[in-house]
Amino acid sequence: MPLVPALRRQPITRIRGGEPAEDAEDLLAVEEPLEIRVNGRSIAVVMRTPGHDRELAAGFLVTEGILRHRDDVLDIIGCSAAKDERGDKTPYTENLMDVLLSGGAVGDVAKLTRHVFTSSSCGICSKASIDAVRTQFAPISLPLRPRREVLVSLPDQLQARQVGFAASGGLHACALFSDAGELEFLREDVGRHNALDKIVGHAFLAERLPLSGRILLVSGRVSFELMQKALAAGIPCVAAISAPTSAAVEFARESGQTLVGFLRGERMNVYAGTLTE
Amino acid sequence: MPLVPALRRQPITRIRGGEPAEDAEDLLAVEEPLEIRVNGRSIAVVMRTPGHDRELAAGFLVTEGILRHRDDVLDIIGCSAAKDERGDKTPYTENLMDVLLSGGAVGDVAKLTRHVFTSSSCGICSKASIDAVRTQFAPISLPLRPRREVLVSLPDQLQARQVGFAASGGLHACALFSDAGELEFLREDVGRHNALDKIVGHAFLAERLPLSGRILLVSGRVSFELMQKALAAGIPCVAAISAPTSAAVEFARESGQTLVGFLRGERMNVYAGTLTE
Repeated sequence: MPLVPALRRQPITRIRGGEPAEDAEDLLAVEEPLEIRVNGRSIAVVMRTPGHDRELAAGFLVTEGILRHRDDVLDIIGCSAAKDERGDKTPYTENLMDVLLSGGAVGDVAKLTRHVFTSSSCGICSKASIDAVRTQFAPISLPLRPRREVLVSLPDQLQARQVGFAASGGLHACALFSDAGELEFLREDVGRHNALDKIVGHAFLAERLPLSGRILLVSGRVSFELMQKALAAGIPCVAAISAPTSAAVEFARESGQTLVGFLRGERMNVYAGTLTE
Repeated sequence: MPLVPALRRQPITRIRGGEPAEDAEDLLAVEEPLEIRVNGRSIAVVMRTPGHDRELAAGFLVTEGILRHRDDVLDIIGCSAAKDERGDKTPYTENLMDVLLSGGAVGDVAKLTRHVFTSSSCGICSKASIDAVRTQFAPISLPLRPRREVLVSLPDQLQARQVGFAASGGLHACALFSDAGELEFLREDVGRHNALDKIVGHAFLAERLPLSGRILLVSGRVSFELMQKALAAGIPCVAAISAPTSAAVEFARESGQTLVGFLRGERMNVYAGTLTE
């Protein structure tokens, strides 16, 4: 975990009970914009926690349905391009990733532009994109029926590795596990959709998609969008510490995904799919 | 609170400790798309909890900088238009609000289209929009220095009224208070940005903007986006149960907003602005 860029010290005033206010310091989760370009063209700017930005850019394009094969990407160029072009170094121009596509993938960029116009990685999506997702990403062909004791073992592993949240209370985490409950890797971000995009991007760049037989653990709630991104990466099972939304459950059932919520201690709710007893 | 549309019963499998799995029922926070149109033109689709949709549509356009005066809006037409046009009644076409603008406001729609292309109400915004917000919405002219005991009294009032969260664990809440700590109104939604847009839209439609001298209480964390929406409505003070992000704190300081986080019991952190002791 890149602890330094993900957290920032901030002078604050701390108040406790009836005591006088005191000067103190707090650790904040860093939130900064990352501009994602495709072949030099600006596609979106994501408010994210710095770190793993190449993975985030790649994962964003995978979960938007643009990138399918590792060969689609010629290179991902970091932030210096923005500085050269703008000629200044404000915090907002130093955060840029330009994804250079191979010839075969370029044709899809027009679709992306239309898509992102009404879509987004959180909170906004278009009716067109809801429809598109259901045809765009194939349902899970081999459903995962995780073992109950495996699921129960996951939250402690997440908590032990959630460095940023422990320090700031402001970072979401997503972690990928094998079906035997072994933690493969974890990402933290102010946006849970970004944390998942970083996971997907990491797997994509390592040529490990689809993520068959894996369990994704989410530190908070689960929305429609998260299930959609998980399906884009072929993840057959999502477990969450908190509640899923109605649309997340509907999407999981239609997509053949197993969805578990309120995974706390020895308890959990199974909203879609089944477990192995 | 429209309890019925905000929550939905869902058959689930519940697992507790070593006991056999049992069939049960859970209440889910409803998440469904709302298409927002301006003069018949689709602008965005927001994943939101149904209820107060006219307020949401109006508030979204206020916080995007399109609507400024109540007179800008001739009418807000509900969902039947979508059904007529599509000729079907899927869940996704019954959720539409068309905001009809008066002549004076129509000129700004082109800006909105460009803006939403790279922006969104959560997680994505454009570099252009970050810059735009800082010039678009005037900083707070009369900062609010809330009293410590007023702030301490707010979370219990929020909790007592957070019907949906208590039932589902899946809804965020935003509540508006006077500077004396009197709750004016509260909105719940799966997206905290939607809950705030519903607050802003309600005030806008009642011709109560700007919301000078008010305190906004947020049930969770505070991002850049939330501070920006609060500024669009002229709200001088934001308090939150959980952590702010680095960008939220920076924005509050630049905008003259008071920002309090981790407001729990008798404790709180003051990140921007000052309190009245």
